[in-house]
Amino acid sequence: MSKPKVFEKPVGVKDYLPHAVSKLRQIESSVLSCMERWGYDQIMTPTLEYYDTVGVASSTSDQRLFKLLNNRGTTLVLRSDMTAPIARVVSSLLREQPFPLRLSYHSSIFRAFENEAGRDAEFFQTGVELVGDASAEADAEVIALAIASLQAAGVEKFRIAVGHVGFLNGLLEELLPGRAECQGKLKDYLLNRDHVGYRDQLGRLGLTEQVQQELKGLLRLRGGQEICTQAMSLTPNATAQESIRHLCEIWDVLEAYGVSEHVLIDLTMIGDFSYYTGMTFEGYAADLGFPVVGGGRYDNLLQQFGRPAPATGFAVKTTRVLELVGEEQEAPRRILIGYDGTGRERALAEAIRLRGQGAAVVTARMEAPGIRHGEARGSEEPERTARRLADGESVKFGGLVYGTFLPFFDGNQEEGDER
Amino acid sequence: MSKPKVFEKPVGVKDYLPHAVSKLRQIESSVLSCMERWGYDQIMTPTLEYYDTVGVASSTSDQRLFKLLNNRGTTLVLRSDMTAPIARVVSSLLREQPFPLRLSYHSSIFRAFENEAGRDAEFFQTGVELVGDASAEADAEVIALAIASLQAAGVEKFRIAVGHVGFLNGLLEELLPGRAECQGKLKDYLLNRDHVGYRDQLGRLGLTEQVQQELKGLLRLRGGQEICTQAMSLTPNATAQESIRHLCEIWDVLEAYGVSEHVLIDLTMIGDFSYYTGMTFEGYAADLGFPVVGGGRYDNLLQQFGRPAPATGFAVKTTRVLELVGEEQEAPRRILIGYDGTGRERALAEAIRLRGQGAAVVTARMEAPGIRHGEARGSEEPERTARRLADGESVKFGGLVYGTFLPFFDGNQEEGDER
Repeated sequence: MSKPKVFEKPVGVKDYLPHAVSKLRQIESSVLSCMERWGYDQIMTPTLEYYDTVGVASSTSDQRLFKLLNNRGTTLVLRSDMTAPIARVVSSLLREQPFPLRLSYHSSIFRAFENEAGRDAEFFQTGVELVGDASAEADAEVIALAIASLQAAGVEKFRIAVGHVGFLNGLLEELLPGRAECQGKLKDYLLNRDHVGYRDQLGRLGLTEQVQQELKGLLRLRGGQEICTQAMSLTPNATAQESIRHLCEIWDVLEAYGVSEHVLIDLTMIGDFSYYTGMTFEGYAADLGFPVVGGGRYDNLLQQFGRPAPATGFAVKTTRVLELVGEEQEAPRRILIGYDGTGRERALAEAIRLRGQGAAVVTARMEAPGIRHGEARGSEEPERTARRLADGESVKFGGLVYGTFLPFFDGNQEEGDER
Repeated sequence: MSKPKVFEKPVGVKDYLPHAVSKLRQIESSVLSCMERWGYDQIMTPTLEYYDTVGVASSTSDQRLFKLLNNRGTTLVLRSDMTAPIARVVSSLLREQPFPLRLSYHSSIFRAFENEAGRDAEFFQTGVELVGDASAEADAEVIALAIASLQAAGVEKFRIAVGHVGFLNGLLEELLPGRAECQGKLKDYLLNRDHVGYRDQLGRLGLTEQVQQELKGLLRLRGGQEICTQAMSLTPNATAQESIRHLCEIWDVLEAYGVSEHVLIDLTMIGDFSYYTGMTFEGYAADLGFPVVGGGRYDNLLQQFGRPAPATGFAVKTTRVLELVGEEQEAPRRILIGYDGTGRERALAEAIRLRGQGAAVVTARMEAPGIRHGEARGSEEPERTARRLADGESVKFGGLVYGTFLPFFDGNQEEGDER
């Protein structure tokens, strides 16, 4: 194993330079403030959790967890989602707080990826969990809030695909009773959105023509509310029918919110997380092949932490949204205050005054020996520096551009007026 | 090793509930915005760094680093400060950017503590680095900005103690020439602020009475600018004298900023970091035994990353400030909108409208089966619920208090008006 070079950082992690930070912070604050207006309270949990509790309960497969040992020999993980840590908090610190609980977060998330260049090992998610409400209203609320969050983040064109784990489970159990392995294979193809593979697999299962046709028909179940009616006729299975009724109710609430134009019912969709128990959804932005938001209902997680409760939620993939949203308007022009030894007191006082008014001000002693790379040089006369810098509409100094230059020089004095 | 209980989290890490998050976010945003007004651009670096680069260069002792292996077998660390990662970025991504560079950050920091109950293993720091400027003006700028940052964070009473690594090194080399081990022991006592231990140690070194008195005299070198004059007379050592001249110059600039009332010169102070090379400072708040801000000059770090440059900076210990600052004013009162099946469409539209105006609104279907723990029950008639909830100035529902209750019920209708 060769030593990393001094300037290298680990594979899959990023530095964010000021321009990107400014965009990222803008998205973070717009989305969190949107969530606040929907009544969600922000919480924070630690980066490190126990492997045996949150690590095991999380939806992330074992080999994708970053693990480490603490100095007592216990295995810790870097959090791989926020849903499991929030379930832990709801069951401990918030144990006495009655349901429903509305919680939001903005957090870095960690996933170890092997042989998958280009995938992030650390990224940001901004999301909510609505805990203790099993209703279709709750599911619709988080979908509507996901839509509002994407809009707040500046994502203009997107589509939310909504499915239901129960429909797929019911349909498969109806048509392939007891054949868990077959069902699993078909689900894997759907999970990977490999519809060609799904069709091929159907041909290899030794099914009757009719069952094959019905299972192929599933692939067409994508569209508006009419899909619900079609799906109802596809199977008499009780779980499937109940799931579709729940989806219909969600659709009604989304219409009441006035956001159903953004929504597509997609019964071929199966949540990325193995623990989803009901409605699942994913949001795709135009021109982007991967989801920018994902969520769903997970009614079995909370009981693992000792406080059984239904729950639903979503996470905006903040780092991906960052790649999507347009360039920020230019940063507000800063003020540069230049001074020499004599002008210093007035210069620094003026800087403090302007900052008090909200202006961004950089001060620079222009003959200071430390400023070696700027355009002002120690050998230059201060007044000439000032004239030269103020020439033109903006001022370049030390590689940065300023909107205004304010000089505080007392003529051609040399250094030496300090005590 | 017993398994952790489901609700447990690792030793030394914290959950922040909504009230604390609100305060923490307020501090974060006030301090970052203050730093922005001083011309500092925010950057972010990853949580994970290579042990061989940033880990080794950081000021944190080896046994206090959280280490883990990535799937290629390379040792990674969780960042233990932001100074070393920023030095890496300045030497790589920002390599072409001319000095001086002004960078700010707000970040979680990790330190593994053995047998030290109550110390945080993960905490927040908000700080700046001013890279490429060796002048006293630069040192004074970061001290003045540290003061402005504490004020922005809401810390009212505090004192900044400023020292200089060079004075102590010069004085010890003058009085204990070549006795590195003795010097090290005395520095350790000073680092731990154990002045009794320092005096005892002096008696065991076999020094002349005069040298002992001079080294004891060091302990009195705490005060205003007059300390500089006293220190000058204590030793003719060139390094020590040059250090004091630099401190005097810093003091002059701090007077120009109008902040010297917050500053104390403390020549007994020795930076926590082994890599400080010049001025160091610590800020103490009233009623708190530990520093809330710390910083100093580190002119030797950047060269380890291939771009030699002088640098100075500080970090506010944000997590500690959180314990200090007063209670937030009460959260703005939220609006609760209650509705039944018939009122739903109007209720949700009204919620969207009010949120668009910036209000925080929670909606609740009051006969919804999922709401089991609130005060509205499915068996209660909606109108009665509405009257009961609106009774009084504020409304309690589901354990939360609302400022306003807006009912959207159409009489005593039962469920069933949905399709």
